[in-house]
Amino acid sequence: MMTVEECIKTRRSTRKYLARPVEDDKLERVIEAGRCAPSGGNNQSAHLLVIKNRDVLKELAVQVKHEFEQMEVTEGLYASLASAIRASKGEKYVFHYDAPVLIVVANKRNYGNSMADSACVLENMMLMANGLNLGSCWINQLRWLSENEALLKTLGALGLKEDERVCGALALGYPDTVDGLPDRVALPRKGNPVTVIA
Amino acid sequence: MMTVEECIKTRRSTRKYLARPVEDDKLERVIEAGRCAPSGGNNQSAHLLVIKNRDVLKELAVQVKHEFEQMEVTEGLYASLASAIRASKGEKYVFHYDAPVLIVVANKRNYGNSMADSACVLENMMLMANGLNLGSCWINQLRWLSENEALLKTLGALGLKEDERVCGALALGYPDTVDGLPDRVALPRKGNPVTVIA
Repeated sequence: MMTVEECIKTRRSTRKYLARPVEDDKLERVIEAGRCAPSGGNNQSAHLLVIKNRDVLKELAVQVKHEFEQMEVTEGLYASLASAIRASKGEKYVFHYDAPVLIVVANKRNYGNSMADSACVLENMMLMANGLNLGSCWINQLRWLSENEALLKTLGALGLKEDERVCGALALGYPDTVDGLPDRVALPRKGNPVTVIA
Repeated sequence: MMTVEECIKTRRSTRKYLARPVEDDKLERVIEAGRCAPSGGNNQSAHLLVIKNRDVLKELAVQVKHEFEQMEVTEGLYASLASAIRASKGEKYVFHYDAPVLIVVANKRNYGNSMADSACVLENMMLMANGLNLGSCWINQLRWLSENEALLKTLGALGLKEDERVCGALALGYPDTVDGLPDRVALPRKGNPVTVIA
């Protein structure tokens, strides 16, 4: 398996997946990597809903499309959300890129560290996925719908607790690319500037 | 260097540091790992303020202590914040554990992905630090003070832009432990529960 440095540098977002299922042992290792993330006060209050049932995923995708279709792009809305709303009006829109696994990361509602902690869980899983030659992509739609009544009902039936809200999600699966692997080229960063106070 | 899996499993929070400085090449690799984190819409809008000047760090620590000392623990305040307020009233309180380097991660104010993106930057740096036998710890105090006028002035003078706010920070340095390394035992997770929808 690659070193942590190589893994961090070659991680890419995968937006096209094979139908091929993720093996249980690989999925387990991705999940465990997520669970090992640090958390404020070591609270470990993230809750991972690992959805690999095809019917559940399909129904969820239909529901997310339905909710997004009703939204309008308003001025000042940030680009990713606006782009998701626009995309949802297309016929083939599937919010999780039809990945065979979707891992929803929820955390306590109104808890100051929920997003920070959950993001670390997600980043660990993205890196571990890359280390196992799996592709992954951060998915924001369920967070954007985190207070949506219909989605709360659906996710509640799947195990989301009343005091939890979605912070993010991860699409996971084998990348559908020419060589079956994500493009392992490290992309140079133009943004994320650094100021050194020496 | 260890694999990504080992690195994720053995990362621990370091709260006691040697005065020994972090070598420039190691610091550079930690920073680059942070910059390689994914970001919503690939915005790369995080801004890393890398503070390694001892005088600046000392002054910052005094200022943070001063601001925290004035806060009161109110009912319903979350445990980590309450604990920081209580600790700040002690004589020896140094919010960044006197680590030789503090990396402040800021991002656009009022941007919906700021915390998520910044947390991924921080997690990447924590993992890379572990891979380089450095210790690190997520530091929340500057985020809790992210709208504090005095701190905004201080950080502004160090390079924080007007439209940026602190999302988190990282203490970084060599761990002051018996063998000079963090305890490399993987801690089993009791929290971060998993619900599988198969």
